[in-house]
Amino acid sequence: MNKECFDMIIVGGGCSGLAASIYAKRFNMNIIILTEGIGGTITSTHLVENYPGFTSLSGQELADNLIAHAKANDVEIKWGKRVNKITKEGQIFNVQFGEENFTARTVLLATGTTYRKLGVPGEEEFAAKGVSYCATCDGAFFKEKKTIMVGGGDSAVKESLILAEHAREVTIVYRGEKISKAEPINMKRMEATKNIKLRLNTNIVEILGDKVVEKVKFDDGSEMETDGVFIEIGRIPLTKMIDELGVKKNKKGEIIINDMSESNVPGFYAAGDVTDTAWKQAIVGVAEGCKAAYSAFEFVSAQKA
Amino acid sequence: MNKECFDMIIVGGGCSGLAASIYAKRFNMNIIILTEGIGGTITSTHLVENYPGFTSLSGQELADNLIAHAKANDVEIKWGKRVNKITKEGQIFNVQFGEENFTARTVLLATGTTYRKLGVPGEEEFAAKGVSYCATCDGAFFKEKKTIMVGGGDSAVKESLILAEHAREVTIVYRGEKISKAEPINMKRMEATKNIKLRLNTNIVEILGDKVVEKVKFDDGSEMETDGVFIEIGRIPLTKMIDELGVKKNKKGEIIINDMSESNVPGFYAAGDVTDTAWKQAIVGVAEGCKAAYSAFEFVSAQKA
Repeated sequence: MNKECFDMIIVGGGCSGLAASIYAKRFNMNIIILTEGIGGTITSTHLVENYPGFTSLSGQELADNLIAHAKANDVEIKWGKRVNKITKEGQIFNVQFGEENFTARTVLLATGTTYRKLGVPGEEEFAAKGVSYCATCDGAFFKEKKTIMVGGGDSAVKESLILAEHAREVTIVYRGEKISKAEPINMKRMEATKNIKLRLNTNIVEILGDKVVEKVKFDDGSEMETDGVFIEIGRIPLTKMIDELGVKKNKKGEIIINDMSESNVPGFYAAGDVTDTAWKQAIVGVAEGCKAAYSAFEFVSAQKA
Repeated sequence: MNKECFDMIIVGGGCSGLAASIYAKRFNMNIIILTEGIGGTITSTHLVENYPGFTSLSGQELADNLIAHAKANDVEIKWGKRVNKITKEGQIFNVQFGEENFTARTVLLATGTTYRKLGVPGEEEFAAKGVSYCATCDGAFFKEKKTIMVGGGDSAVKESLILAEHAREVTIVYRGEKISKAEPINMKRMEATKNIKLRLNTNIVEILGDKVVEKVKFDDGSEMETDGVFIEIGRIPLTKMIDELGVKKNKKGEIIINDMSESNVPGFYAAGDVTDTAWKQAIVGVAEGCKAAYSAFEFVSAQKA
C-alpha cells in the first residue's frame, strides 16, 4: 500500500488524461497518472491536422507535445501496468495498478476505448497503411481514392459521408441485409451522395496488399480493389475496472458525464472517448480533461476547507 | 449584397472562431470569417502555459499558430470592420459587416467579450491616459511607476503579476473582504511578489488628474497618488448584433448553448467567451468552436439533402 493519498489519480495517459494533469498541477494538486501506455489512441493516427494550433503533425508528435507539457509541470507518470480495479471506501478511492495500490480523493478515468476489430488477416498488418478506424481523422488522405467503409451502424454511415467528401468512391460493406440502424437524416444524405455505394450481405475475409492496402477479398470469393479500408463497427469503452463503483453508463457502456466532466459518483470524473460525449475528437477530450481537473480541484478544496 | 450564400459565417476571429473554421473547412463547407480584429482576447495574454500541447508561448504566438492553421486550410478572413447586425429571413441569415451584406445558412457567433467598466468619474476621460483594461498590453508603459489594479478575481491577480514586472508598486484595490477566486498558483505567486499590496473592502469613487491620471479617491474619502489605474472587474459578452434573432441568453447576457454548441435558434451556434460556459478557458472555447462546426455541417447537410 502506497501511503500517500493523492488529490487525484488520473487513469489513462492519452490526450485527455495528459491535458487534465497539466491543469491539475497548475491548481497545485497532488496527482499521479497511472497508465498502461503513454500517448493513447492518437498515437495510431498517422497525421493529425485538426488539433487547433498544430497545422499538421503525427499523432505521436501531438502526444509527445502533451507529454512534454505534462513533464514541464512535474507530472508524475507511472506506466507499463494496467489499472485492474477501482473501489471506494468512505471518501477515498483505491486504485489497483498491477500489484500496487494507490489511494486518492478523486479519480479521473480517461482510459478511452478500444476499436472493435474486424478480426481478419491483413487488418493488423496494414493498420495505418490503408486500414483506418477514423474517417474524420484520416479521410483527407484518401483524396480521389477508392475506399471501403466496413459497418452498418449510424457511425459507419456518418463516417462514409465524411469520407465521400474526399474519396472518389466509398463502398459501404455490411454483413446485414439492410442499413437500418442509421439515423434517417444520415440515411437520406447517404442516398443522396453519388459516390457512396452499398454492398450488403457481405463480409470481408481478408485485406491484401504489398506495402499498403491494394484489395480485399469477400466471403463469396470475389475481390475488390481499394486504397483504403475504414472499419467502423463499434468501439468498446474501457471501464471494466470500475464495475463495483456504481458509475452510471449509457447503453454503449460509456460513462455519462455532465458539462463539467462529473459522473454520478462524487469525486469520480471521466474525459475523452470513454464518456458518452457524442462527438469523439482529441480536442474535445482534451477540453473534458481540463474541465475534470477543475471540477476535482473544486471538490478537493471543499473537502479540505 | 454579396450573392454567395455561405454554408457558415463565423463572426469573430479569436481562438474559438479560428478553430471552428479549421474543422468547417475539413468538412468541405463554404465559409468565411468576418471579424474586427484577428487573434482575439488571447493576444493580450503575455504567457499561455495551459493550452495543452504548447508548454509555454505568448498569447500572440498561440493566435499566430491558429491563424496559420486556418490559412493552411484556405480559410477566408475578412477583417477591419464590425458585424453590426445579424437577422434571419426564412432559413437564411443576413450578416451586416460594415457596409457589406453577407448571407449564410448558419452562423457561429464567437465574438467574445469586452471589458467591464468601473463607471466612475474620470474613467473615460483618462482612458489610455493612465486608465487601462489590459496590463499585458500596457504594463510596460508603467515602468517604475505607482499603479493600482482594480478587481479581485483570478484575472485581476494574474494581471497584477504582469504589471508588477514593470511597475514599482501595484496596489490591488478590491471591494470584497478577501481575494478568494484566484487560482492557488496565482495566489501563491502574488503573495511572493514584494511590490504587490492589497487594499480590501475598498471602492474607487473617482479618478483624478490633470492631463493624465494623478490620483484616485476611495469610498472612505481618502485619496491615493497613482500613475495608472488598471481595471479588471469582469467582461460583457458581445451580442448586441443579434438582438433581433431571439437567441436565448442567461442573466449575464451570455448565449446559452448545449454540449454541441447549438443555441435555441436553428442554424445559430456560439462558442468561446460569449457563451454561458461556466469555466472560460481558451481550450474550452476551441473545443466549442469545433463542435459548432460539426453541428453546422450536419445542419447544412440535412438542408441540402
